[in-house]
Amino acid sequence: MKKRPLPERTIERLSEYRRTLLGYLAGGDTHLYSHTLASTHGITAVQVRRDLMLIGFSSDTKKGYNIEELITFISNILDSETPQNVGVIGMGNLGRAITSYFKNKRDKLRIVVSLDNNPEKVGATIAGVPCRDINELSEVIKQYNISMILLTAPTNVISELTTQIKGSSIKGVVNLSGIPLTGLDGSGIWVEDYDIITILEKVSYFTQK
Amino acid sequence: MKKRPLPERTIERLSEYRRTLLGYLAGGDTHLYSHTLASTHGITAVQVRRDLMLIGFSSDTKKGYNIEELITFISNILDSETPQNVGVIGMGNLGRAITSYFKNKRDKLRIVVSLDNNPEKVGATIAGVPCRDINELSEVIKQYNISMILLTAPTNVISELTTQIKGSSIKGVVNLSGIPLTGLDGSGIWVEDYDIITILEKVSYFTQK
Repeated sequence: MKKRPLPERTIERLSEYRRTLLGYLAGGDTHLYSHTLASTHGITAVQVRRDLMLIGFSSDTKKGYNIEELITFISNILDSETPQNVGVIGMGNLGRAITSYFKNKRDKLRIVVSLDNNPEKVGATIAGVPCRDINELSEVIKQYNISMILLTAPTNVISELTTQIKGSSIKGVVNLSGIPLTGLDGSGIWVEDYDIITILEKVSYFTQK
Repeated sequence: MKKRPLPERTIERLSEYRRTLLGYLAGGDTHLYSHTLASTHGITAVQVRRDLMLIGFSSDTKKGYNIEELITFISNILDSETPQNVGVIGMGNLGRAITSYFKNKRDKLRIVVSLDNNPEKVGATIAGVPCRDINELSEVIKQYNISMILLTAPTNVISELTTQIKGSSIKGVVNLSGIPLTGLDGSGIWVEDYDIITILEKVSYFTQK
């Protein structure tokens, strides 16, 4: 039976909690108080407890949460049962950097292939994954069972790529290209825009006030 | 006279609108309808008009908004009068990629220097900017008049760096390190966490439902 999806911000926070919990676990801790988790993320302990209640986790003891249990619990919510394969479109500086950064970070989420139109890159292994020709997109998606795309291609090819992505079996795109992916509206593909210039402009604005 | 700061989401959208408007301007357009701007960003035209009303822009004509006028208007809100200098801490793959990506993207926001602890990098010019010793952080911040930091350093040095940043004149940090910057609470420094794994986990979750 499918459950109703959780709110977007709850999902983001669960991902952030898990990252923090993994850090404490690696540091040798076994338990963590909700207020420690809260202050680490700049939110209230009430918010933490509400998020964990939403996912049905309630084993708060006098020593705080059992870190391993909570990680397992969050992982059951966030992760798919089988690993999800991710493809990177565009192996410029950013595509290479993210592919390297991502290596072995998550068991259930892995970058397995990249795509580019540069003949010098196609056929090579870059940042540990094979680079294939962007014109073979739909075959590559099937061959590697790709469900998500990290898009770091230059802006002038985005419109063409959008058409190709729309016609594929891709379910989600993290768009780092810096321009919105308008062509995917109504396709049922989940798109998250992620632009560092926007974030930096926001910080710039609020630090001037 | 200082005005009251605008809501965070409005600032993010203004930055996104400007990016889109710059694209249309480069494509030779002179005017744009609010509903075109809205559909590009997956929001309603009412939302666009409300955001622009908040900044006092109201010159909607039969042909739509005058693109150049609107860009100037948004820029007056978002940009500081003088260029803001940004420093990158950590010149690994990600630091280099972002520094290259950022080049000449914005007049009023520029990456001018980087810092690292690797002797092979210190003293070199990487991705077009000088790389300095992280131990000289406070001098470098003064010398280059840095107001913001892009943090891409590895997790094991974050705690030490936090202390150094807290003692400096830095006003804002975009934190790409993947772990929260807890030590800056109460320092008055504006921090935005920006983690690609969280975004990818979110997309993964919603595409499984």
